[in-house]
Amino acid sequence: MVRPAFRDSLEASARKSGGLVCVGLDPEPELIPAHLGAGPEAATAFLRRLVAATAEHAAAFKPNMAFFEQYGAAMLDVLVPVLESIPREIPVIIDAKRGDVPNTAVAYARALFDRFDAGAATVAPYLGLDSIAPFCGEGRFALVLARTSNPGARDFQDLRVDGRPLYEHVVERCVAAFPADRCGFVVGATYPAEARRLRTLAPDRLFLMPGVGAQGGDAGEAVRAAADANGGGFLVSSSRSVMYASRGADFESAAATAAAALKRTVNDARASITAHVA
Amino acid sequence: MVRPAFRDSLEASARKSGGLVCVGLDPEPELIPAHLGAGPEAATAFLRRLVAATAEHAAAFKPNMAFFEQYGAAMLDVLVPVLESIPREIPVIIDAKRGDVPNTAVAYARALFDRFDAGAATVAPYLGLDSIAPFCGEGRFALVLARTSNPGARDFQDLRVDGRPLYEHVVERCVAAFPADRCGFVVGATYPAEARRLRTLAPDRLFLMPGVGAQGGDAGEAVRAAADANGGGFLVSSSRSVMYASRGADFESAAATAAAALKRTVNDARASITAHVA
Repeated sequence: MVRPAFRDSLEASARKSGGLVCVGLDPEPELIPAHLGAGPEAATAFLRRLVAATAEHAAAFKPNMAFFEQYGAAMLDVLVPVLESIPREIPVIIDAKRGDVPNTAVAYARALFDRFDAGAATVAPYLGLDSIAPFCGEGRFALVLARTSNPGARDFQDLRVDGRPLYEHVVERCVAAFPADRCGFVVGATYPAEARRLRTLAPDRLFLMPGVGAQGGDAGEAVRAAADANGGGFLVSSSRSVMYASRGADFESAAATAAAALKRTVNDARASITAHVA
Repeated sequence: MVRPAFRDSLEASARKSGGLVCVGLDPEPELIPAHLGAGPEAATAFLRRLVAATAEHAAAFKPNMAFFEQYGAAMLDVLVPVLESIPREIPVIIDAKRGDVPNTAVAYARALFDRFDAGAATVAPYLGLDSIAPFCGEGRFALVLARTSNPGARDFQDLRVDGRPLYEHVVERCVAAFPADRCGFVVGATYPAEARRLRTLAPDRLFLMPGVGAQGGDAGEAVRAAADANGGGFLVSSSRSVMYASRGADFESAAATAAAALKRTVNDARASITAHVA
């Protein structure tokens, strides 16, 4: 089976959902609505219902592997049925932040793209371009960590190399090495100034922007900083603020409302850019 | 159940095995001896027999998650019985190179240490100290990537920050942030000059040194570069050159012979240092 190119399927799905919002799927045992029970069965039921409730607003879904792996021997009992519940026309970004020496990176890429059918995967750059390349093969798409959304991002990503922060070098080297239809970047929504600067270095790249909501990023500000010349080229991603908008019996409608509100905020910010340009 | 501190169990296991060798467990479908069949069952049988054959020479075992994950929905059918087959007194380093924002890193650390009972885990530093901290909690041990063994390691790890390569900053910051009994480093055996320099920055840290054998690292040279003041403080890790020493019916004896030979090379290099010091 040939998977459609990630950016093509994302564009179609963005059009259908009417927005550029990615819904994160991070099952946190202590946050799952109590009336669903506990353990892996509760996580599976919760996530499948969440996917159904938010699908109309989601241009993409982004399960983060960490939260599945924490179920240990039951991790696949959660991951597999949740992946299966995602409508085929909505692309899946597996957030795994993998990175290893080349022959090992090949195995990781095989796992994510060929076994779990990811449309795109997040990739950590520390090991270098040869560790990223297997995620940029035909029919694959790497979202390389550039400037992440956490406070600790400053520790190494901001270190200055030839007068510019490390993360700019990461973006420049990746832009030179991999084409725009196979490689984009993770740029935290919590750092709009950095996003703005990176857009100038990577005008045609997709930016995945996590960190709105629970991590404190302002979606409108992130959009105004990261949008490309056409007001697109990004995905704003939210996990906790959508998933756990309510922990009561109304969690599905609350999640749908939160996803719709985020979509509206993003669209409003896009409209303000277009107005400004015109 | 309280796990003994990783460095204590490693020291005991090094004494028992008579060496400082770590055996990697990387099931590569195309390299598994053909007479064992194919698919996840073959991988499980192969690895369990390999563990039994090499245990007497192994101070630690190091399964790399990538090679298990590539079995997709069958990954746990390989991983779980292989982990169970490792003798309790030999510590397990799960090579996963994880790294994510703090609340996600907590989930990864829970998966590796609490669900899969790792003694130590490899961790990628790009996201910063707050992404590493959850792997350095009580009863845990992080092996932070410093200078990796692949050619691409040069791309970002060698970039100069204040006149010194990035990987030195990673080591210095981690040394300042995390104690020696909870944090060591991955230092490729393929780069002895870098290892020698890092030893001066981290005199009391454990160095995990992959890259001997298939990746071209010279074990003796790596040992002479990385040994601490007592001729220890490191683990030389080999995966392919031990695991796939023979792909015939004699794969177990060939792997045992290769592991024993590596142990001898490492011990000879240690003896030459001691002689030199004396």
